[in-house]
Amino acid sequence: MEFSLNSPLDMHIHFRQDKMLELVAPLTAKYFAGGVIMPNLVPPVDSIDKLDKYRSEVEQITSPLNFEPYMTLFFRQYKEEELLAAKDKIIGIKLYPAGVTTNSESGISDLKQADSTFRMMQELGIPLLVHGETHGFVMDRESEFISVYQWLAENYPNLRITMEHITTKDAVEFLDRYENVFATVTLQHLLITLNDVAGGLLQPHLFCKPIAKRPEDREALLEAALEAHPKLMFGSDSAPHPVHKKESAGCAAGVFTAPVAIPILVELFEKHNKLENLQTFLSENARRIYKILPPEKTTTLSKQEYTIPVRYGEVVPFRAGETVSWWYKDE
Amino acid sequence: MEFSLNSPLDMHIHFRQDKMLELVAPLTAKYFAGGVIMPNLVPPVDSIDKLDKYRSEVEQITSPLNFEPYMTLFFRQYKEEELLAAKDKIIGIKLYPAGVTTNSESGISDLKQADSTFRMMQELGIPLLVHGETHGFVMDRESEFISVYQWLAENYPNLRITMEHITTKDAVEFLDRYENVFATVTLQHLLITLNDVAGGLLQPHLFCKPIAKRPEDREALLEAALEAHPKLMFGSDSAPHPVHKKESAGCAAGVFTAPVAIPILVELFEKHNKLENLQTFLSENARRIYKILPPEKTTTLSKQEYTIPVRYGEVVPFRAGETVSWWYKDE
Repeated sequence: MEFSLNSPLDMHIHFRQDKMLELVAPLTAKYFAGGVIMPNLVPPVDSIDKLDKYRSEVEQITSPLNFEPYMTLFFRQYKEEELLAAKDKIIGIKLYPAGVTTNSESGISDLKQADSTFRMMQELGIPLLVHGETHGFVMDRESEFISVYQWLAENYPNLRITMEHITTKDAVEFLDRYENVFATVTLQHLLITLNDVAGGLLQPHLFCKPIAKRPEDREALLEAALEAHPKLMFGSDSAPHPVHKKESAGCAAGVFTAPVAIPILVELFEKHNKLENLQTFLSENARRIYKILPPEKTTTLSKQEYTIPVRYGEVVPFRAGETVSWWYKDE
Repeated sequence: MEFSLNSPLDMHIHFRQDKMLELVAPLTAKYFAGGVIMPNLVPPVDSIDKLDKYRSEVEQITSPLNFEPYMTLFFRQYKEEELLAAKDKIIGIKLYPAGVTTNSESGISDLKQADSTFRMMQELGIPLLVHGETHGFVMDRESEFISVYQWLAENYPNLRITMEHITTKDAVEFLDRYENVFATVTLQHLLITLNDVAGGLLQPHLFCKPIAKRPEDREALLEAALEAHPKLMFGSDSAPHPVHKKESAGCAAGVFTAPVAIPILVELFEKHNKLENLQTFLSENARRIYKILPPEKTTTLSKQEYTIPVRYGEVVPFRAGETVSWWYKDE
């Protein structure tokens, strides 16, 4: 049995730099037609020069694989000429709201200082991609941030806002409240809760930000994905770390799902008799929301037992060593 | 400045066996006058023979340090002659309710099968020590278990029941509802929340069961400890694991606090101007609740900067490498 996807897209991905980029970028670019490349390098991608340089580093690896990297800038207060120069080079600007504390009102007052940048983004049609968490209690951070999303959505009604890697029922429900609000969801948040991370032995390879939440949150996310909710896109947030940074006294946040995401999604959608919605979730929604036309690419899987490698280089993937029932054809 | 405690007691402690016992038992026995030794060895201490053998292993190490090990049996359905033989050798029987699922009613129906053991314990005056968690969602397990505590407290009104290592506001509040219900609380649950475990980098050395909960839970626990709530005792649940089992793809649960607990408690109670209550929390409450008379022992600390070792043998302690403002005199 085979199953094909037409130009699947990963709308949130960490490619890193240098050797890690060389390791992980092909593992996305082989299977996806395009992806939204996060700008949180050290230092962050926050100028046209850095953007051009990073794109060329990425393209050197991904171009032979017929993959479109949709680049992003790291949010700061930009001048109009910067945004004009960036406009055609980026799919959006990614905001990590470092100043947003438990108190979302103070978060909003911080963001108010960036009013002119938001206004220009709105006018120029540049989407805003947001890591929406306060600095409050770890299980509440996303829900507390909803009021910030609300403030953004109401004050900039023509700004397209993507709630990145949503993890809560609250965020799923919020999706329907404002026309200009969209979201991505990862693979792992459709599958796991905090119980999988910390309910038995503590699992550093399942630790990510935002942290996996409660069963009712996972159910709401899964339901929205299986129905291919028109405002929800797949964004893996695949975030590789070398194993020594995960199995460590201070474990870095991030789950590496790039090479395994599509097979596990096929398995998941098949299990719920929703395979017919996977194309929309993995490609059509993103094309419509971002008005993009990705490269033509067919990714075909066949139903076969496949054991996920325990490592890709020095990176441990999601479900390392476990068996999936679908894998890429001819692999 | 100096501060002395009279026979401090650790009412919940994991001593392990063999080399680990040799490493950790002296780090409790030097500073405490006595402690409740957990029976969850592999295999568990669930017979008089195993109990006698384990006590002699423990005493060989702790006797020279003027330390009384209060031994426990691992709960199972015991016969009357077994309980009669155990009675004067143990401080209580520890129940790990393996059969208690999310549904606490089914948990109770499992426990009903042990009715005769509970009845005999009640008649013989043998306390029941309970790890009170269901198998539900990790943040809810203790609160879900409260109805099991309620069932035990009501059905065996003369059975002394200790809720071990409580972590929630719900458990603190439950303490006052039944005369026969008591509790221990660890050091770490007075200090940390899930944010400390998983709010930044993931911290395997702060991972324990029950997992640290919400800020309002920690506040309720701290308040009860600082007031030396008459039904609350200190029980460190100090649980050593070799570092390779903590900084690992599947990190074992347990925080090792034995050698640092008293200094950090002095620092904490001093900070809140409650030093006068520490003797009650660390000794008097346990003496009254369990009707025990521990060995005479004075543990004196002096106010001095001390840097906690990064390792004791192959075990990483709580607050490894950090500075405390009190330490044992002449050390």
